[in-house]
Amino acid sequence: MDLNVVILAAGKGTRMKSRLPKVLQPLAKKPMLAHVLETSFKLEAHKVIVVYGHGGDSVKSEISRYFPDAPIEWVEQAEQLGTGHAVKQAMTLLETNTRTLILYGDVPLISESTLSRFLNEVQPGECGVLTVKLNDPTGYGRIVRDHAGVVREIVEEKDAGKEIRKIEEVNTGIMMADSIDLQQWLPTIENKNAQGEYYLTDLVRISNDHDVPVIGCRVKDPIEVEGVNDKKQLARLERMLQKHLAERLLVQGATLADPARVDIRGEVNIGQDCFIDINAVFEGNNTLGNNVKIGPNCVIENSVIGDNTIIKANSVLENAILGEHCDVGPFARLRPGTELANGAKIGNFVETKNIKMGAGSKANHLTYLGDSEIGTDVNIGAGTITCNYDGANKHKTKIGDGAFIGSNSSLVAPVEIGKGATIGAGSTISKDAKEQTLTVTRAKQVSIDGWKRPEKKPK
Amino acid sequence: MDLNVVILAAGKGTRMKSRLPKVLQPLAKKPMLAHVLETSFKLEAHKVIVVYGHGGDSVKSEISRYFPDAPIEWVEQAEQLGTGHAVKQAMTLLETNTRTLILYGDVPLISESTLSRFLNEVQPGECGVLTVKLNDPTGYGRIVRDHAGVVREIVEEKDAGKEIRKIEEVNTGIMMADSIDLQQWLPTIENKNAQGEYYLTDLVRISNDHDVPVIGCRVKDPIEVEGVNDKKQLARLERMLQKHLAERLLVQGATLADPARVDIRGEVNIGQDCFIDINAVFEGNNTLGNNVKIGPNCVIENSVIGDNTIIKANSVLENAILGEHCDVGPFARLRPGTELANGAKIGNFVETKNIKMGAGSKANHLTYLGDSEIGTDVNIGAGTITCNYDGANKHKTKIGDGAFIGSNSSLVAPVEIGKGATIGAGSTISKDAKEQTLTVTRAKQVSIDGWKRPEKKPK
Amino acid sequence: MDLNVVILAAGKGTRMKSRLPKVLQPLAKKPMLAHVLETSFKLEAHKVIVVYGHGGDSVKSEISRYFPDAPIEWVEQAEQLGTGHAVKQAMTLLETNTRTLILYGDVPLISESTLSRFLNEVQPGECGVLTVKLNDPTGYGRIVRDHAGVVREIVEEKDAGKEIRKIEEVNTGIMMADSIDLQQWLPTIENKNAQGEYYLTDLVRISNDHDVPVIGCRVKDPIEVEGVNDKKQLARLERMLQKHLAERLLVQGATLADPARVDIRGEVNIGQDCFIDINAVFEGNNTLGNNVKIGPNCVIENSVIGDNTIIKANSVLENAILGEHCDVGPFARLRPGTELANGAKIGNFVETKNIKMGAGSKANHLTYLGDSEIGTDVNIGAGTITCNYDGANKHKTKIGDGAFIGSNSSLVAPVEIGKGATIGAGSTISKDAKEQTLTVTRAKQVSIDGWKRPEKKPK
Repeated sequence: MDLNVVILAAGKGTRMKSRLPKVLQPLAKKPMLAHVLETSFKLEAHKVIVVYGHGGDSVKSEISRYFPDAPIEWVEQAEQLGTGHAVKQAMTLLETNTRTLILYGDVPLISESTLSRFLNEVQPGECGVLTVKLNDPTGYGRIVRDHAGVVREIVEEKDAGKEIRKIEEVNTGIMMADSIDLQQWLPTIENKNAQGEYYLTDLVRISNDHDVPVIGCRVKDPIEVEGVNDKKQLARLERMLQKHLAERLLVQGATLADPARVDIRGEVNIGQDCFIDINAVFEGNNTLGNNVKIGPNCVIENSVIGDNTIIKANSVLENAILGEHCDVGPFARLRPGTELANGAKIGNFVETKNIKMGAGSKANHLTYLGDSEIGTDVNIGAGTITCNYDGANKHKTKIGDGAFIGSNSSLVAPVEIGKGATIGAGSTISKDAKEQTLTVTRAKQVSIDGWKRPEKKPK
Repeated sequence: MDLNVVILAAGKGTRMKSRLPKVLQPLAKKPMLAHVLETSFKLEAHKVIVVYGHGGDSVKSEISRYFPDAPIEWVEQAEQLGTGHAVKQAMTLLETNTRTLILYGDVPLISESTLSRFLNEVQPGECGVLTVKLNDPTGYGRIVRDHAGVVREIVEEKDAGKEIRKIEEVNTGIMMADSIDLQQWLPTIENKNAQGEYYLTDLVRISNDHDVPVIGCRVKDPIEVEGVNDKKQLARLERMLQKHLAERLLVQGATLADPARVDIRGEVNIGQDCFIDINAVFEGNNTLGNNVKIGPNCVIENSVIGDNTIIKANSVLENAILGEHCDVGPFARLRPGTELANGAKIGNFVETKNIKMGAGSKANHLTYLGDSEIGTDVNIGAGTITCNYDGANKHKTKIGDGAFIGSNSSLVAPVEIGKGATIGAGSTISKDAKEQTLTVTRAKQVSIDGWKRPEKKPK
Repeated sequence: MDLNVVILAAGKGTRMKSRLPKVLQPLAKKPMLAHVLETSFKLEAHKVIVVYGHGGDSVKSEISRYFPDAPIEWVEQAEQLGTGHAVKQAMTLLETNTRTLILYGDVPLISESTLSRFLNEVQPGECGVLTVKLNDPTGYGRIVRDHAGVVREIVEEKDAGKEIRKIEEVNTGIMMADSIDLQQWLPTIENKNAQGEYYLTDLVRISNDHDVPVIGCRVKDPIEVEGVNDKKQLARLERMLQKHLAERLLVQGATLADPARVDIRGEVNIGQDCFIDINAVFEGNNTLGNNVKIGPNCVIENSVIGDNTIIKANSVLENAILGEHCDVGPFARLRPGTELANGAKIGNFVETKNIKMGAGSKANHLTYLGDSEIGTDVNIGAGTITCNYDGANKHKTKIGDGAFIGSNSSLVAPVEIGKGATIGAGSTISKDAKEQTLTVTRAKQVSIDGWKRPEKKPK
């Protein structure tokens, strides 16, 4: 039977104290709802429906950025009248002869493996509820099973007697049923309770009334079903997620100086024998080859790092592609469009943007390289600046193989430095420099005798 | 009844292994004693008396730096003969018709709310002792209450029988009594014990002897009454305090990448939707507007950051004022006196000191700006240096609106760059540059044919 | 009786997912085996024998780097047929009239103090087994003692009945016996078990058979006997070790902002009243004087830092020697051979390598100083570069006492700046500069009227 997924994402999240709708609050730099959607897509759902409410437009536009081509169907819940009411909004979109799984935009860490198990344990024609055992179940709806293990009732805290309160297995809110059953049952849910809300939980009773067995499937790790209502819970889940991601790196064979001090906001593919020092932050999609070393306090975004390359302390990479045996940092900043060939070296206080640097070339100190094509075995002296911007347009600098750029030089683009050329220290090169030749701009060095140093003025 | 507070602060703290007197050991960069004093001032005490001893002068001078105008009265305890003896030193300063609360300079995390409750629960004419329940009470004086809950006795570990030892409620040392009672009772405390010390704890017995009921008020969080005797305990309290401060930010709506990796040494006021990445360190008084983003590993001191401004990774700010929509870092260092107008941009490896930068102006790379007034929409090229110091005096640089400073330029102050002026790359500008004009210092570019590169010498 | 130590180090460590042999996996940047060897040497063992197997050559060569002069004897275990078999390989090297202690290259945190106690508690003529009490002993061999406390048997999990399984004291694998006994007993160990391996554990039975008492000596901290089989366990032990090292600093009197955020990979000797902020990483041998302050996110390797010196945020030091009252960073990078005299100052975005800087001299901003001798009270302006490399050779720069180097200057080595000399801003100095004189290279400043700014081109 095909699967529909309905994700409830209409809540405002007042306790978040944010202008951002609750389900857009970020976990690992991605909206909570995007996490739930990603997991849904992995289940190969035939249809994914999001019930939105507060901040609907921003929810839709932000989510579209993450899944531009995904066939998400959006249903508005104009008033928030409870979970049962929310699912009812999606009813007309539910396809007959499918099953419907109900997830929550603010329960972001539910895993594909748990849901797959849920989908397996609950058969078509049955109703399913995902449960969890809590050491302290206070406040949650208790799961009452019969002797055969079938769920007979979910009893809310306020209605629970002494014995029921002892039950540690509670409702997570995640449910499943045949779509056709949902379509029949949802309209029968009533709101005769203190809050005047329609509760999805009532499905358990209704299902039992129709002699449809309710299968309780227990999730192993409570973190998967933790909801997020405030920033403290958000931070807690962030850390749990990061812990999980760090452990995945360890299992893959990475050596981490401190698993509690790695942040992965996206994907990191690693080769063999990578070492990641403290406080690494990875964003977007990153690939590390074999034997890559990442020093302390580095931020690495959407980058590819070749085998045996080392990134030293306090470096920042963004959309950079590095070959093998490169040596970067400390205090290097590689900006988008940086491509380093094998054995290239970028040292301290060096910024690169939109450059290609050939094999074995070096820019070791205090340099800005922008919009440049740099050959192989080039040595770029300390303090070199490519003047790529004239205030209106960006221009290109080309530096030939084996060139030597003296320190503190300014290369005024567009300009080309020939192969094997040498630029004298402190030069401002605004015309092409011939290959194999020394080119220089330098005023005469003069000493002014009798000159007196300024004296400290009284304030 | 008015309140007197007596803070015992005479201990040496040998186990700290420090030349600094114990109560000056810093917690969140502030002496422990300063924390206790701040809390005392919040209670609106009529009089705050500090009993000092070891390192008295440095205690007084250091504390005066934190509270230059606070009416603290200082009493010396020349010999350390016990807590009872310490309080006795303050006796003549206690005002009749007041109550006296006794606090400790090395119990820094006692909170205003706990003390307020203590002040409310203990009535004038009563004696009060603050207690705490410990899972492991070993070593502490047990609180013995009668059937009515009145504290009858504090029994020290060594004097405690089997039953008494089971009591988990223990003495914190924090006490309160009418000043007039203290004045009568303190002289009657004796030192007939192994240590030959006068123990304040004896007040409980004495109070009972005088039929003055002793009210035991229990603190909820044991951390509030933890004393600090060594660096391990100091570090422990530092982390507990930081945890508490991070949670306060979360409650206020901040998103923290990792609450265990934020350090607040002072105050942080935040607007809505701020994101603070890992390892932020805040010192002094800081204000963040709405939607401010702080990147990883930033240190921010005494700064104001406007709405929608982003501080990227590894930046250091000190006494800086930033407008809205500014973009700073990574690797930026804003030093005291930096004022950025809306939309200004300070990039990597840029240092600023004592400058005003106008709206939309940029210094993106490898630049030092000191003692400067920079207009709006100015573009400061990579490698620009304001030469503000002539070895004796500092001078000012003025840069007009819309100016374009070519890369690697040196602006030798005092100097003024006119509005819309352009400075050619690599220039050293020591005279004013006209507005709307290109100004440049540049030697001719020459190529030296036949020149040969140096060859590697044998070592 | 002299001591032999046999360290089993032949395992491959498949679960490490590494090309590196298991015992070379690093803990605090040092191979696990090197930790065990260091501890062995502290026991003043007469002979230390390492039984190697997988990756033997790399194990030997890497370990030799750490202990170039240590008299380690290497024995190959060509096939891995169990611990008993491994020790047997070393049999011919065991000296008569010695005792032999058996350690493991993948149990790196065993301490000298525990082993010393073990050596004391087990007498010559006795057999010894180091045990540990675990809350969850599942899977480990249980220690069965008789009424006198003598170890009678080690029962493996699979062979253990209900009662035996309740025993929480388990075998650590670390054993000791007279060498002569080992030589007799090892050949009698059989491999008639499921794995077909020779188990060292059998020694307990054999020893009992020979009426040699087996003394069980219990280790206090289970971490000391934890083995490492995968990267998760390696990370766990790394953190436990770091926690221990941080606590040692605290006991010595250091103030740590966060003991969980200090990494020590080598030795740190500290004076009194040092403050170490978050995320410090120390590598190699470091010495900090009194009242040294290390700012956040610093990496410090093989350096000596004098009294009252402060290293500000995000600085990186390697093989540097700093005097007293120096002021370094933020964003400073001191490379090998940097020597700063008292009161020297290295500021932001400054790199030094192989330089001596005299007392009171300053290089505060955006500077590269290499291969230089700098006198006292020198002021080096922002953006100064020593051009020490001509593409083939490195040359020296000398700067005399009291010199003032204007900003953005290039000093083309070899070159000497005289005492009290002033270099004008933006100069390129390629010839020696006279003392007490202003030396400058500067083209005339010209303004080009009528010049028009480039206009933005359509793309």
